[in-house]
Amino acid sequence: MASPKVPPTTVQRLPLYLRCLVQASAMHMPVVNSLQIAEMAGTNAAQVRKDLSYLGEFGTRGVGYDVDSLITHLSKQLGLTESRRVAIVGFGRLGSALQSYPGFEERHMRVVAVFDADPAKIGTQVDGVTVESVDDLEVVVKQTDVEIAILAVPGAFAQDIADRLVAAGVRAIMNFAPVRLHVPEGVEVRQADLAGELQVLSFHLNPRRASV
Amino acid sequence: MASPKVPPTTVQRLPLYLRCLVQASAMHMPVVNSLQIAEMAGTNAAQVRKDLSYLGEFGTRGVGYDVDSLITHLSKQLGLTESRRVAIVGFGRLGSALQSYPGFEERHMRVVAVFDADPAKIGTQVDGVTVESVDDLEVVVKQTDVEIAILAVPGAFAQDIADRLVAAGVRAIMNFAPVRLHVPEGVEVRQADLAGELQVLSFHLNPRRASV
Repeated sequence: MASPKVPPTTVQRLPLYLRCLVQASAMHMPVVNSLQIAEMAGTNAAQVRKDLSYLGEFGTRGVGYDVDSLITHLSKQLGLTESRRVAIVGFGRLGSALQSYPGFEERHMRVVAVFDADPAKIGTQVDGVTVESVDDLEVVVKQTDVEIAILAVPGAFAQDIADRLVAAGVRAIMNFAPVRLHVPEGVEVRQADLAGELQVLSFHLNPRRASV
Repeated sequence: MASPKVPPTTVQRLPLYLRCLVQASAMHMPVVNSLQIAEMAGTNAAQVRKDLSYLGEFGTRGVGYDVDSLITHLSKQLGLTESRRVAIVGFGRLGSALQSYPGFEERHMRVVAVFDADPAKIGTQVDGVTVESVDDLEVVVKQTDVEIAILAVPGAFAQDIADRLVAAGVRAIMNFAPVRLHVPEGVEVRQADLAGELQVLSFHLNPRRASV
C-alpha cells in the first residue's frame, strides 16, 4: 500500500521528523536546516534532504525549511490533520499500558474504543473510555469509526480478531501478538517485535559479528 | 557501532529471519530456499539472499540453506548463543507487561533484574525476580551482569537513569520513554516510538499522500 514514490524507510522516518519539527516550533525556531533536523533526529543531513524531497519539500538553499509550513505539510502527508481513531483489542497489562501511553493524544492518535473478553473488565471505565466486550467488536468498531486497531491479545486469538477487524472495515493494524497475521491486499499491518528489537541490540554487543 | 559490513536495515531483519528458520526447523524442514524464507518473513527472495550474503552465507545454488547451520550462524551473529541478561527499569503497567511478554525467554532474552521507585513494589517477587529499588541500580546491575536495559520510566527520569546505567557498564538500551537519550559513543540505543508506529500506519491510510 506504500505510495510507489515514497520508500518505506523514508515513511518510517517521517513521524520522527514531525516530532523534531514540533520541538523546534516549541523552541520558537521559525526556520531549520537539514543539519539541525538531522541532529535532532539522529540521522544525517543528506538523508533528511533526500527524505523530504520525496514529499516535494526542497526548502530554500542556504536558508532551510520553514518550520510551521513543513509541520503542516508532513501532517497532511501522514494523514494527521485530525486525530486518528484508534481501538485497543485486549486490555491486559500491555493493552492498558498502551491506553495510558503518554503522547498518543498530542501526536494525533485518539483511543476511542477498548475491548476485552474478561467479564470483570467489561463495562469498566478507563480514562473516559468504556471497556467493551470483544463479542461486540464489529458493532463498536463501526459505531466509533475506528481507523487503526492495536492488537494486544494472546497469539492464539490474533488472526481471528484481525479477520473480524478487517471485515468491520479496519485497514490498519498494529500487532503486538507474536504471530504473523495474514490480511487481504489493501490492509496495512505493522508487527511489533519486542524480542526482535532486543536481538538487534544484541547484535551490536557481539564482538563475534566482526569475524564473518 | 554497527559493523561497517552489515547495513542497519539488514541487521533489523536478522531477528525475523532467525524466527522463520526456527519455525522451519520445528516443521522438520532440513533445507529452505530464499523464496521460502522471504514468504515467511514477508519480504522478497533477492532481499533475503542479499541480507544473508552480508553474513557470508550464500547457501547452495539450486538447493538452498541448511536450516540448522543457518540458525547456528545467525544466532552467533546476533550474539545469542547464550541468553542475554536484561533489566527492566520502571515497573509500571508497561514494565510489568514487558516482563511477562511471551517469547523473550525462547528468543534468548532473560529478564534478570527489575527496578522501581515505588516502596510498595520494591521487594515483591514477580516470576522469580525481585523488584529492586532504583536506588540500588548500579549495585544490582553489576551483580546480575546486565547487558541490555529496557527503560520504561517517565520521560523526566529517562536521561538520568540512562546515565547511571551507562556508568554501571550497560552498553545497550531499549528506550520506551518518549525522549531522545544522549549516550556516549559505543552505547547503542533503540528508541521505541509507539505513536510513531501508528503514524506510519496513518500514512498508508491517507489518500492525500498521492498528491505530492
